[in-house]
Amino acid sequence: MTPINYPNGKKQESTLPQGASKAQSTISYGNRGMTLEEDLNKSNEYYLETGRAVIHKKPTPVQIVNVEYPKRSAAVIKEAYFKLASTTDYNGVYRGKYVDFEAKESKNKTSFPLRNFHEHQIQHMEAITAHGGIAFVILRFSTLNEVYLLDASHLISFWNDQKNGRKSIPKTEIETHGFLVSPGFIPRIDYLKIIDKMYFNH
Amino acid sequence: MTPINYPNGKKQESTLPQGASKAQSTISYGNRGMTLEEDLNKSNEYYLETGRAVIHKKPTPVQIVNVEYPKRSAAVIKEAYFKLASTTDYNGVYRGKYVDFEAKESKNKTSFPLRNFHEHQIQHMEAITAHGGIAFVILRFSTLNEVYLLDASHLISFWNDQKNGRKSIPKTEIETHGFLVSPGFIPRIDYLKIIDKMYFNH
Repeated sequence: MTPINYPNGKKQESTLPQGASKAQSTISYGNRGMTLEEDLNKSNEYYLETGRAVIHKKPTPVQIVNVEYPKRSAAVIKEAYFKLASTTDYNGVYRGKYVDFEAKESKNKTSFPLRNFHEHQIQHMEAITAHGGIAFVILRFSTLNEVYLLDASHLISFWNDQKNGRKSIPKTEIETHGFLVSPGFIPRIDYLKIIDKMYFNH
Repeated sequence: MTPINYPNGKKQESTLPQGASKAQSTISYGNRGMTLEEDLNKSNEYYLETGRAVIHKKPTPVQIVNVEYPKRSAAVIKEAYFKLASTTDYNGVYRGKYVDFEAKESKNKTSFPLRNFHEHQIQHMEAITAHGGIAFVILRFSTLNEVYLLDASHLISFWNDQKNGRKSIPKTEIETHGFLVSPGFIPRIDYLKIIDKMYFNH
């Protein structure tokens, strides 16, 4: 999609440090390999081309403050800011059902920090579930290169449990309640295979 | 959502003329009253708050070229461009079904110009329908202040018919195949009432 890297306005580990230049970010990015977002975009393209599902990443929400309209060329946005998303990043239709998810990665090895999500997203996933949609998260432990799919209900439980002091989901709980997505080449992250098991019983 | 007006990168009648200043656009905008987008955003908020449906407008797709990271303040996008959307603007879940639509307005009185849509959006709506989703367009004749809901299948027929020379949908055809949405106060555009009739038989 967008050829450069930029923070999405959320606090998460992959956010560039303040003051990082474009050139620096491109270099460190290259060292990290494909991001979860790139892998999912490629997988969604594959699903679309093969008629499996229609699932897209939503554009990054941006607050536009100033636009210039030069003569005989395209409008240029001269000042804008990253906004916090009020929903999740991905949605679409699969086997007639509404599908909605958020995807996050962490370098942690033993638990997944809940600061990767925010209150609006949790409320959104609750609403989706209440309306008969399929809502889940895709979690990558980037250091271990393991990807899990976890139904939103479990994320919501752990989210509400934060008042008891725990600010992350133990990996053992993700292994128990979630599903490991085996890595592949085409598609890279075949999460629909897991969706079939979890929500369609085969 | 975004407090200022800007073209969305698509050729459509509401796009500001090149060279138009922000101040000018605000004035002409004020004279036009609420836009279709604003009315739909308000209606979707109402649906969300009352637990009727979860339907959101996607963020405007923007190609980000240059971002600055000032110390101790938020990242500033210094150069970006409006991109053509590869999907429709609105989607979500209603009564367990995936719902997807595009909304456009025209000042024409006797027909709705097809240049308000583009090939990718038509393909997207075809795919949504094939996967069991509900796809439609909301068309406002702004001069007449009439809003119609038209199933994607009819739009697709007229789109494919363009090779025979007709570049717009006659209003009489929209009246025949579409449904008039009566104006309201809360919600302003109660399109779910029409969806109930069209897709749920009551």
